[in-house]
Amino acid sequence: MKSALSYFLAARQCEIGELERLTATSTLVGVIGRFTHALQRERAMSNIVLASQGERFAAARLEQIPQCDGLHAQVLTSFEALAREAASARNGARLFNRIAVVLDGLERLPRIREQIAALELAPHAAAQAFSRLIAGLLGVVFEAADSAGDPDISRELVAMFHFMQGKEFAGQERAHGAAAFATGHIDAPGQQHWRHLIEQQHHCFQVFDEFADSALAAAEHARHDRALLVRIERLRRIGLALGSMPVDEAQVDAWYECCTARLDAMRDIEDQAAAHLKQLCERQIARGHTALRDQQAALEALQREAGARHTGRSALIGPQLERSVLDLVHDQARRLQAMSDELETVRAALNERKLVERAKGVLMAHRSLTEDEAYRSLRQMAMNQKRRLADVAQIVLSMADVLPPHSS
Amino acid sequence: MKSALSYFLAARQCEIGELERLTATSTLVGVIGRFTHALQRERAMSNIVLASQGERFAAARLEQIPQCDGLHAQVLTSFEALAREAASARNGARLFNRIAVVLDGLERLPRIREQIAALELAPHAAAQAFSRLIAGLLGVVFEAADSAGDPDISRELVAMFHFMQGKEFAGQERAHGAAAFATGHIDAPGQQHWRHLIEQQHHCFQVFDEFADSALAAAEHARHDRALLVRIERLRRIGLALGSMPVDEAQVDAWYECCTARLDAMRDIEDQAAAHLKQLCERQIARGHTALRDQQAALEALQREAGARHTGRSALIGPQLERSVLDLVHDQARRLQAMSDELETVRAALNERKLVERAKGVLMAHRSLTEDEAYRSLRQMAMNQKRRLADVAQIVLSMADVLPPHSS
Repeated sequence: MKSALSYFLAARQCEIGELERLTATSTLVGVIGRFTHALQRERAMSNIVLASQGERFAAARLEQIPQCDGLHAQVLTSFEALAREAASARNGARLFNRIAVVLDGLERLPRIREQIAALELAPHAAAQAFSRLIAGLLGVVFEAADSAGDPDISRELVAMFHFMQGKEFAGQERAHGAAAFATGHIDAPGQQHWRHLIEQQHHCFQVFDEFADSALAAAEHARHDRALLVRIERLRRIGLALGSMPVDEAQVDAWYECCTARLDAMRDIEDQAAAHLKQLCERQIARGHTALRDQQAALEALQREAGARHTGRSALIGPQLERSVLDLVHDQARRLQAMSDELETVRAALNERKLVERAKGVLMAHRSLTEDEAYRSLRQMAMNQKRRLADVAQIVLSMADVLPPHSS
Repeated sequence: MKSALSYFLAARQCEIGELERLTATSTLVGVIGRFTHALQRERAMSNIVLASQGERFAAARLEQIPQCDGLHAQVLTSFEALAREAASARNGARLFNRIAVVLDGLERLPRIREQIAALELAPHAAAQAFSRLIAGLLGVVFEAADSAGDPDISRELVAMFHFMQGKEFAGQERAHGAAAFATGHIDAPGQQHWRHLIEQQHHCFQVFDEFADSALAAAEHARHDRALLVRIERLRRIGLALGSMPVDEAQVDAWYECCTARLDAMRDIEDQAAAHLKQLCERQIARGHTALRDQQAALEALQREAGARHTGRSALIGPQLERSVLDLVHDQARRLQAMSDELETVRAALNERKLVERAKGVLMAHRSLTEDEAYRSLRQMAMNQKRRLADVAQIVLSMADVLPPHSS
């Protein structure tokens, strides 16, 4: 039969095991970041190819595809490694389902590429296929962030997820703007969608700033290339007014280059964040091992002492050792509870996102709104009622059962 | 490389695996219930032995000890079975630490029993040692309830945990009252503690009613023996006024018998609840297997169809099958999300308990209150401010950092 002490040490080992799983997760997040980056680029190139009727970026697109395919294979390998670990994890079912969504998207990709090569798709439709696939990949990162049990690591994963999501909105903006510049005109819904993408980037990077380690957030700020941002703002202004001014053919290249420089800089930050996350995991693992060794050594010393005393006066054996084990167990219980409390706080940011996503879905179904309109409507409600976005989302969800679906 | 479909099916298998772990947990909860019941009885007997200076219940107590020891061994075996499963579970560390607390208590038990046999302990101190051990055992049940991923099962575990906790307050009341009747007097703190135990039972059974399956709650209500309750209320009235009236020696036996009859009836309900929980797990597992089989069959049929069509017109292969997999994956994602939302609601009851426990701890430390006083003070604040107990607890916790600890 095992003793209290052995279970106490097993608890510590469990924590270390969880940290080791998180290290594997942070590697996966890195691989997904690289693959997403390549797909984002292919999406923008495809949009320009389609919007220019094959006149522009056709060769660049053909060079980009093998880049994507190499990373595609890495992602599949990482999924299989994760699958071996995750079978008994609490969110295993959700994680596997997220992976199934991604694989389904990947299985459709060759057909999408054929259609793009044959100029059979509208830019919007092609971009949507890529965006769905990337949303699936970020869904896997979201699930990883949602499953971390260590609050510091969870905080970094939440920051990382929001950074990747913000970068993806920037990527969508690049593709959307590129198609607009290449066709030379934009309609009202296209303008609205563009503004929505700018707003969403801003929101994601705010959450990143809130959760990222301060050194990392500072690195991100330092990287902001002011001159580049000014050029992007100028092109945004021009792009949002397309059709009302004479079209400058060079602008599609300028837009693509500026946005790509910005996205590449973001990719560097992602790499730094992934390296930082990995270091954090390794530091926590090392800390766990040290604590475990210290505790074992302290207990062995007490046992020796008790043994030495035993040869003299037997009445004194045990109580001090017993007391020490109990103190350790209670300290550990307090520490685990504090971690779990802190984790709740961190996870609140993820819950907020879940609530807003679901409320958007309700508004889209009940009022036949587009995703942009649903989000704007939530934001408007929050401003009017001076409530947090998550609170408004909660109210919308609680009303969903009593609202009849929109009949259209 | 695995396909989207294989991950989709793996997600379903993960769910089934989780349900199988929950079945094992429900068996453990049953074993803990039986052991707790035996310890509760030994505690009351020990209290009477000590309060009567060894005059009463000494033989009954000696017969009870081997009963406890048999169940003790079963609990240890169950812990080891659980430990094999839990090493990779998300709350593994917390669970192992809870088990360490229990084992530490069990390792101290022989010494406590020696002290009771030698009449070296006050009834209050002996009762406290047993109550701590039982609190540790219920802590394991709490952790099991906190880790369940299926909302229906989590609901039953929350109900079960609160029922066991309510029964434990009833057990503490039996021991506390027995000591009072056996000594023939009670002081003001003793009266206050007695009232606190009655109040706490009431609160726990309310939560049970809220979460238990309606059939089970009805069975619990049907079992209420009105005549027994009237006798208990009468004895409570006498007990709370002890010292002001002549003592009737037979009352200690009457009190012990009435309370024991009530606790034994509760033990029956616990058994029903455990059986119910086990059935629920088995039903969900069977449902999962059926769904898995149906999905596999449907997909194989589609594959055959696609194959048949393939021999004729190759252009039609695939898309219908692809669409079906995607629909299944999305349905599964929605189902998993709905489960996770429902789970949050159920777990709110557990979070409430955690908050109240921690706020009590803060009040005890900062204002040097006893546990009863801390709880009453929280209740009073909630009534005065017309807030929920959990909200008041949250406020106390958020103030804890700014309050200086009580200097005594």
